[in-house]
Amino acid sequence: MAIKRNGCEGCTDITCVSTQQVLSQDVAKNVKTAYDRVKARGMSACLFGSSGTCCRNCNMGPCQIIDGVDDMLGICGATADTVAARNFARTVAAGSAAHTDHAREMVKGFIEAAKGEGLHQIKDVDKLKKLAADFGIVTEEREVKDIALELGEKALAEFGKQDDAPLSMLKRATPKRQALWQKLGIAPRGIDREVVEMMHRTHMGVDQEYHNLMLQASRTALSDGWGASMLSTELTDIMFGTPVPRRAIVDLGVLKLDQVNITVHGHEPLLAEALCIAAQDPEMLELAKKQGAKGINLAGVCCTGNEILMRRGIPVAGGFVQQEIVLATGAVEAMVVDVQCVMQSVAEVAKNFHTDIITTNYRAKMPGGIHIQFEEHEALNSAKQILTHAIKNFKKRGKCFIPKETKMDVVVGFSHETINTMLGGRFRASYRPLNDNIINGRIRGVAAIVGCDNFKLADDTHETIVRELLKNNILVLATGCAATSLGKAGLLNPEAARFCGDSLREVCETVGMPPVLHMGSCVDNSRILIAATEMVRQGGLGDDISDLPAIGTAPLWMSEKAVAIGQYFVASGAQVVFQNLPISGAKNFNKYLTEGLMGEVGAHWNIASEPLEIARIMIEKIEAKRDALGINKKKERVLFDMDMRRDLGGGPLKDVGCHGPTAS
Amino acid sequence: MAIKRNGCEGCTDITCVSTQQVLSQDVAKNVKTAYDRVKARGMSACLFGSSGTCCRNCNMGPCQIIDGVDDMLGICGATADTVAARNFARTVAAGSAAHTDHAREMVKGFIEAAKGEGLHQIKDVDKLKKLAADFGIVTEEREVKDIALELGEKALAEFGKQDDAPLSMLKRATPKRQALWQKLGIAPRGIDREVVEMMHRTHMGVDQEYHNLMLQASRTALSDGWGASMLSTELTDIMFGTPVPRRAIVDLGVLKLDQVNITVHGHEPLLAEALCIAAQDPEMLELAKKQGAKGINLAGVCCTGNEILMRRGIPVAGGFVQQEIVLATGAVEAMVVDVQCVMQSVAEVAKNFHTDIITTNYRAKMPGGIHIQFEEHEALNSAKQILTHAIKNFKKRGKCFIPKETKMDVVVGFSHETINTMLGGRFRASYRPLNDNIINGRIRGVAAIVGCDNFKLADDTHETIVRELLKNNILVLATGCAATSLGKAGLLNPEAARFCGDSLREVCETVGMPPVLHMGSCVDNSRILIAATEMVRQGGLGDDISDLPAIGTAPLWMSEKAVAIGQYFVASGAQVVFQNLPISGAKNFNKYLTEGLMGEVGAHWNIASEPLEIARIMIEKIEAKRDALGINKKKERVLFDMDMRRDLGGGPLKDVGCHGPTAS
Repeated sequence: MAIKRNGCEGCTDITCVSTQQVLSQDVAKNVKTAYDRVKARGMSACLFGSSGTCCRNCNMGPCQIIDGVDDMLGICGATADTVAARNFARTVAAGSAAHTDHAREMVKGFIEAAKGEGLHQIKDVDKLKKLAADFGIVTEEREVKDIALELGEKALAEFGKQDDAPLSMLKRATPKRQALWQKLGIAPRGIDREVVEMMHRTHMGVDQEYHNLMLQASRTALSDGWGASMLSTELTDIMFGTPVPRRAIVDLGVLKLDQVNITVHGHEPLLAEALCIAAQDPEMLELAKKQGAKGINLAGVCCTGNEILMRRGIPVAGGFVQQEIVLATGAVEAMVVDVQCVMQSVAEVAKNFHTDIITTNYRAKMPGGIHIQFEEHEALNSAKQILTHAIKNFKKRGKCFIPKETKMDVVVGFSHETINTMLGGRFRASYRPLNDNIINGRIRGVAAIVGCDNFKLADDTHETIVRELLKNNILVLATGCAATSLGKAGLLNPEAARFCGDSLREVCETVGMPPVLHMGSCVDNSRILIAATEMVRQGGLGDDISDLPAIGTAPLWMSEKAVAIGQYFVASGAQVVFQNLPISGAKNFNKYLTEGLMGEVGAHWNIASEPLEIARIMIEKIEAKRDALGINKKKERVLFDMDMRRDLGGGPLKDVGCHGPTAS
Repeated sequence: MAIKRNGCEGCTDITCVSTQQVLSQDVAKNVKTAYDRVKARGMSACLFGSSGTCCRNCNMGPCQIIDGVDDMLGICGATADTVAARNFARTVAAGSAAHTDHAREMVKGFIEAAKGEGLHQIKDVDKLKKLAADFGIVTEEREVKDIALELGEKALAEFGKQDDAPLSMLKRATPKRQALWQKLGIAPRGIDREVVEMMHRTHMGVDQEYHNLMLQASRTALSDGWGASMLSTELTDIMFGTPVPRRAIVDLGVLKLDQVNITVHGHEPLLAEALCIAAQDPEMLELAKKQGAKGINLAGVCCTGNEILMRRGIPVAGGFVQQEIVLATGAVEAMVVDVQCVMQSVAEVAKNFHTDIITTNYRAKMPGGIHIQFEEHEALNSAKQILTHAIKNFKKRGKCFIPKETKMDVVVGFSHETINTMLGGRFRASYRPLNDNIINGRIRGVAAIVGCDNFKLADDTHETIVRELLKNNILVLATGCAATSLGKAGLLNPEAARFCGDSLREVCETVGMPPVLHMGSCVDNSRILIAATEMVRQGGLGDDISDLPAIGTAPLWMSEKAVAIGQYFVASGAQVVFQNLPISGAKNFNKYLTEGLMGEVGAHWNIASEPLEIARIMIEKIEAKRDALGINKKKERVLFDMDMRRDLGGGPLKDVGCHGPTAS
């Protein structure tokens, strides 16, 4: 449980210790944060908007619909179900668009890398060849550069595809799932096209049947999960290296008093990777020293943070909700931002200090920010220009406060491949041991905790849920700001095995792994799709994702991306639980999302407002799947586990000095 | 002025005579319409939504922003300007997406026609070759089919384009405009991509500077106007024939007591064209007779109506606001709908009668509708299946009321090519005479009245504005439901020249043309871009659209498409006037849209709530452009006009028996 303290004025509801500490200091006394705005709001958010029944899709409105009241239909006659479904579908479209446009940049960056034109190179050739095979690209006796270029171009074409054939990556799904998507007509065709069709169908007077709207919402979300996001993750891995386990630290204590602190915030790692390289440049280090600093300390915020944390062990200062707090320390020379989840308020907070907000992408500017365009083909120069600007701020630093004791050790880097190797052993990478442990009941199932954090709900929600799951021997996968939050709570290191039920603890200690595996940023949820499909493929747990004892949650979802992710999970057969969705004002649509979808895609949304209720649902659903699989019957204790221990001895965690019996 | 009558209960505010007549009949007494819902709303629409400052783009909200009040920022710190700009930009994205997805279907239909696989053929070979040239396609010594297929494929590729080169059709703009778009970075690259990037940039925490958001909004809108919509219009013309002037009738009186009445409603003419062909099939006519009907009467509603009106002279029963009233006559066997602007209430209204609502496109279903999927490659069969269903309903028709006297003669079909030929004469098609008449002041300028109609505002708004413009010798171009409304008001026939000021009347009578030229459906506003560019090219009126004494308005805009259209007009240099926009709650953004854009693109939005005020602004802006061009100075009367009369004698209007001295 997070420690609840009464603390500084205006932040008595804040359960995060490092945030409390910063906000209670003099240095932050003039800083207004989102916590203040939540408090000042003084009334609940618009009920129509919250419940999904506010329609602003044409100029006859805005219409506020009340379900079942004839006079409170839309002027066009749209019902609460239609309006809520349209709004929900647009949320999916916007979230998918965000991932898609991020992915497009990554593919373009990848093509430059393939051409050898940029700063970046092809690092993971094995992965390159595997992905190339999915695109039907010949890899034998060809240069890496050629393969990469062909792959990059074919990947880019997936965004613009106009024919009706399914996206290439869908082939990675189980045969049963692929057949289901075809049958329902929801196999995505072109990534951009699905967003556009969704926007069209939610336009006034187009699609007005919520089932039908949701078919396209599924197709759009799938074009994200199995298209844009998956391509982005895969190509990013190939370019910057597939994550392997490594130790790092998180929370505000990662900032350094005697160094230039530069936080990178946003989502696209092209710039952040360049900054990591540039920050080691002697010229930059020299400049920092000239300004009186002992070095350059890069720290991540939000998902750009997760990207460089996973691949480079660069510390993460905080997740989404801490972006203002990071600045309120007064110790940050520059916050360098790219796209998504950057609060406009950071520029206001920065005005209290010497800090500059540096926007770097033409798609994302803000008043009060300084814009230095990052040019991928001039990556190192761009990065140095940005660093130089930040370093020169160091001398202007005034009073500051870094809560030094608030930093937490984490082990991160659990890509799908890592999990495979870690569990299967170095020489026979496989999900077999995971499946076996699920079948024998040591691990009851797998839960994915993904998505954002959010000021509206308690900071410790993720932690509360996860502790409950661990106690119940459920292995947890985490991404995004949820992972950061769990890291701060001490759950991302192998020592956290002590919070698990006996049998899960045994597995974690055997492998030397944390019970919560950080799989990356929010765009990396596609890793979970691959992992789940691999589990199915290993056998013994049914023949589709919908058979697995697995479930996802984004309890503190904030961004539209989280809803897109939720929908691609559901359409892939995985149950999800959210704390709220703007659908409560539309009875039939609500029922359809939370029950009816099951009949179509084998999974549905679940809503529960309390963290423990969310955990309870997740546990129950996992147990129900176990029952359905027939793996909950009493079995003899198998000898298998002794062999397994031996096999598991040499996993990759050793390299980073992970704890646990086998890694010591 | 439309006649204002106190009429039936519940429709005292309705100024449309045919609507009044229907709603005051017994047959319609149980029908609830949008007029009832507007009345029942009993309160004004949400002020935050109306003024653009309601944000539902993430789950920290909904946030209701009050400009200038610190505590009423978004939780993320988003200002009123950011929120209103994001909402506005999403409206543009949705409107563009609608046109884009419509255009994609047309291109796909065109490719089938090119392959000779469908019902449809290549009708306008001249236009095919012209468009092919814009795409750099060789046309000499090639079969039409080959040219068409290459064109179709190149056109389709524009939707999915991922490189950064501008869309092919942009080359049609003036050199100055193309250069400006390049300089501002708003030349659209790929049609789908621009919508996706817009959705991304309006996602929480991405683009938070309203200028920057509007750059992408312009690019998105331009990808509609000069991309999707223009491609759709051009390929539709090539396939179904470029409109030429023809007589037709509009208003509810076009329904027939003794025939099977089938209304087609929506936007994509692929199905409607097939229905027109199928309705002449002896088998269908025989079936109708067997059911006791004297024939099959197709009538249009909304823009599908405009499409077949323009190309086939099929009557239009009503525009957007009359879609329920058409059904309330009880005389319609089936309303066949495709996509966009179909009110969900039509299914409810139809329940009072024997009428079926037949949805025909997988993208657009509604509860209570019967779905018969239209398959383009089986177009005739699909159309016959739909007709058969409708015909069989004829016997079930109960009491009905058709306001027979409410039908109005119109002359329609003023494609850009028609205007060119009509004004220039058969043998030297040219905009020269138009330009000359503008320069000599007979025509003061050109006004485009486009877009929807809307229950929130007076039905006679279009008419009021246009009469004022005509009196002031301004030639009017009309599209969409605005054109239908003007047709009902009697302004779309040559006799309406009598409402014009002396000099415009003289021109109209000379040519034998109506003073309001119906240019097509709402997707056809791209014709206006071409016509305006052609006027520039003719010389004497400046070197860009922004120099022309021309202006647009969509006074009763309802759909998001209208905002996309407005934005592509503005970004093309044409001023527009709207009655309202959801931007009033954001001071800086409002000022930027209504003033600031001028400095960037040479045009801006204007807002005026009263019709006569709208007309006044339009007249003033036109006169100001005349001043700037130096064509308002006193000149000697030129002899030119006598020659001109002779030249203008043989225009195409003669063929349809248009009135006026030269056509008689």
